[in-house]
Amino acid sequence: MTDAQAGYRLLVAKLRRIARLEETLKLLEWDQATYMPAGARQHRAEQMGVLAEVLHRYRTNPRFLALVDELAEQLGELEPAAAVDVRETKWRTDRLRKVPADLQAARVRAQALARAAWLEAREHNSFEGLCPHLREVVLREREYAQSVAPDSNIYQALLEDYEPGLPLEYIEQIFCELRKPLAQIACSVNELSKTRRKQTTVLRGHFPIHDQRNLSYFVAQQIGFDFRHGRIDESVHPFSISIGTDHRITTRYEETDLRTGLYSTLHELGHALYEQGLDADAHGLPRGMPCSLGVHESQSRLWENFIGRSEGFWRFLLPHASRFLPSLSGVALEAVLIDVNEAAPTPIRTEADELTYNLHVLLRYELERKLVNLELRVEELPEAWRHGMEQLLGVTPTSDREGVLQDIHWPSGAFGYFPTYTLGNVFAAQIMETAEREIGPLLPQISQGRFSFLLDWLTVQIYRRGQSYRSLALIQRVTGAPPSSRALLDHLHRRFDWWMEHGAL
Amino acid sequence: MTDAQAGYRLLVAKLRRIARLEETLKLLEWDQATYMPAGARQHRAEQMGVLAEVLHRYRTNPRFLALVDELAEQLGELEPAAAVDVRETKWRTDRLRKVPADLQAARVRAQALARAAWLEAREHNSFEGLCPHLREVVLREREYAQSVAPDSNIYQALLEDYEPGLPLEYIEQIFCELRKPLAQIACSVNELSKTRRKQTTVLRGHFPIHDQRNLSYFVAQQIGFDFRHGRIDESVHPFSISIGTDHRITTRYEETDLRTGLYSTLHELGHALYEQGLDADAHGLPRGMPCSLGVHESQSRLWENFIGRSEGFWRFLLPHASRFLPSLSGVALEAVLIDVNEAAPTPIRTEADELTYNLHVLLRYELERKLVNLELRVEELPEAWRHGMEQLLGVTPTSDREGVLQDIHWPSGAFGYFPTYTLGNVFAAQIMETAEREIGPLLPQISQGRFSFLLDWLTVQIYRRGQSYRSLALIQRVTGAPPSSRALLDHLHRRFDWWMEHGAL
Repeated sequence: MTDAQAGYRLLVAKLRRIARLEETLKLLEWDQATYMPAGARQHRAEQMGVLAEVLHRYRTNPRFLALVDELAEQLGELEPAAAVDVRETKWRTDRLRKVPADLQAARVRAQALARAAWLEAREHNSFEGLCPHLREVVLREREYAQSVAPDSNIYQALLEDYEPGLPLEYIEQIFCELRKPLAQIACSVNELSKTRRKQTTVLRGHFPIHDQRNLSYFVAQQIGFDFRHGRIDESVHPFSISIGTDHRITTRYEETDLRTGLYSTLHELGHALYEQGLDADAHGLPRGMPCSLGVHESQSRLWENFIGRSEGFWRFLLPHASRFLPSLSGVALEAVLIDVNEAAPTPIRTEADELTYNLHVLLRYELERKLVNLELRVEELPEAWRHGMEQLLGVTPTSDREGVLQDIHWPSGAFGYFPTYTLGNVFAAQIMETAEREIGPLLPQISQGRFSFLLDWLTVQIYRRGQSYRSLALIQRVTGAPPSSRALLDHLHRRFDWWMEHGAL
Repeated sequence: MTDAQAGYRLLVAKLRRIARLEETLKLLEWDQATYMPAGARQHRAEQMGVLAEVLHRYRTNPRFLALVDELAEQLGELEPAAAVDVRETKWRTDRLRKVPADLQAARVRAQALARAAWLEAREHNSFEGLCPHLREVVLREREYAQSVAPDSNIYQALLEDYEPGLPLEYIEQIFCELRKPLAQIACSVNELSKTRRKQTTVLRGHFPIHDQRNLSYFVAQQIGFDFRHGRIDESVHPFSISIGTDHRITTRYEETDLRTGLYSTLHELGHALYEQGLDADAHGLPRGMPCSLGVHESQSRLWENFIGRSEGFWRFLLPHASRFLPSLSGVALEAVLIDVNEAAPTPIRTEADELTYNLHVLLRYELERKLVNLELRVEELPEAWRHGMEQLLGVTPTSDREGVLQDIHWPSGAFGYFPTYTLGNVFAAQIMETAEREIGPLLPQISQGRFSFLLDWLTVQIYRRGQSYRSLALIQRVTGAPPSSRALLDHLHRRFDWWMEHGAL
């Protein structure tokens, strides 16, 4: 065994120990959002704080960092798979160690205060109280960006926390391509909303939670979720989380609207299927980890929107759904499809339909980029938000709660996160086009509940590759073309045309 | 602030950090036993292993130990409460640091192997495969005892892991007092089983789990369990666990026997009520921790047996129980009491009735004491077990699975643990006698569902005192008399006489 090989073995052991601690932190989070009694809140924050500190010490341990540096010099002597692990670990540790300890502490503190202020601001529907805290967060994130990548554009540096190596120009190009056509769609949808529309509310009414739960489990089982390595629970804000090789999702049911629970489940399932498809032998190592947030989101969107709102999916599901929910028997396929593809601009991102969702992201992207570049002052945000909403979506939020206060991302310092939502949609569209090209038309297969052919293809093409490629290179490799927004626009236009034809009187 | 006071403040901060990590480890355990999917087993073991190592490093950190030593020299300068924390921390850290790292590793390894061998031995109903592993565990525990307390009797040293400072002579005396009278009761019960007995099986039949769950929640609520700081879940082996100020219990329902779920719940509730009653301000410090395993067990036995099988309790519960379980309506109180106090010697400890339970413990105590003193060889265990069972209980196990292989304690190295079960019964009886003396007859209060007067008394007398006193001193303080088995024997004789009168034809 060469020195490099021996060093790599040691690195693997160290990375796995770190992964075990990260997973433990995730269990604390999962429990906090699912089963933890309310009285444990303060204590839980402390438990997470202590473990985060332990983790930080492991990640910045001088011997660990020295080993990473040493191996990074010997990349040529390693197997390609090992080289991926070293390359990505080096990239992450380099960023981490550039952040001074006192800056890190100041970030954590500023974000904690801003999140608390955000909760209060939302409650009182007043942006003002959040202002000084958000200003502090912006300044700290700027310092952070300048520390981790002194030679880079600030927003670029922040973006790379979520999309390593992704050039900002690419994001800029995508949003530039999407801006006009999506605003046009939103405009047409708005027009239509004013005239009378077909009222199809077949998925609204009374659907007992217990039956919805059974339906969710059934869907998960059929699509290929592995319950031996996963669970489905419930929480106020649905999420997916991987505690090692134990991939859990949560969903949220509404008794009066079947769509809420079903599409939350499908969205989170998409995330979990990605995690379950990673190379388990490489668990805890970069080549056994998801590529980026954008690619992750592509999988949730793929199952939620591209599959879940398709005709094929409902051809398959409707007869089964009527077994779980007898009130659905006799309902027409078309009525369901109209209901799940309903389009209507709304001021709230998380309630947005597929057609207008990306406009919500675009607004946030433009504002946050200006914010961190100091081209927009924090106190100007509410007005800029209202203006942007009117311009892009033709919708006017009636309050800050319905506007700039709706998301927790900025108080949490997560600048550069929003674009990954749209990246996910862009990637998903392009991946789906390629899948149809390579494995044939999906509709007949999906209509019969055969999902494995698609899941297997995704597993080979994306999941098993972990971080072997960065996101753009991965999409190029999978689809044979550089990522562009063309496929997404085609998809959205098809959906919009269908909806115009069927959804309007 | 004096040096001692400043040092104590620092100690508190360090102890609390350690407590947060201990709680995190407990969450991993809780999840493992409740909601963790089966495929995560291996990973979970690794997560627990890594966290246990981190914890060990914190507990044996040289600066931490130096601080403890320093403060132990300054006890006189501290407030009494602070002195308790220092005294108990010193005692524990002294034990811990005396164990050489390689011995600790050898213990963990030996126990892991023995537990695996035990599972297999049980499955194949063959003690032989366990023998070499158990022998190794015994030898390691001897070494451990000699390390932590070189001048002490080996069994005494092991016992103190569970009952700090408890003299072995006391255990010896208790069992000596109990041996004959209990064996006589067992003998009479056996006699009676041969003649015909009243068959009252009112609590057996069909009781939907969902209804039993509601009954358990109701009972917990009535007794005073705080659901804001606790939960009730289900697991194969019921347990209680405290994740900081978040006190969770699990129970196990059997659809065909109402007693299983109800008494599991009551038992675990007793443990949780103790934890919920600890001084929350002193959380993570010895004076905010339970006194000992024996005192802990006294609380579970108190609610399970002394309260839960009493006439007063069922006078209160029966009308409510019929609301949750309509099949109980019209059932006579006496029939229920016969059913929950049913006595019949069995080879299995966890299925034993209140009258004969302590004989199971006595047998284990005698055997394990001989084992660690090398007065009994591991391979002689099965025969010694059979002989003891016949002598004490008049019952012959038909297999090792029903005999020496039934408990996991020995393969886990837990020698000295079993006696705490009987200590719990002894303490509970004496505590109940005192409670009746101090706050008046319990039956009328309990019959009306008024539990708080008893719970409040226990809280002041026991829970809030944490580790301010060790177990014998605490019992002496609470009851005004040195602990003895007299109260327990009185209680059991009363129960037995009642049962003889009502349970026999």
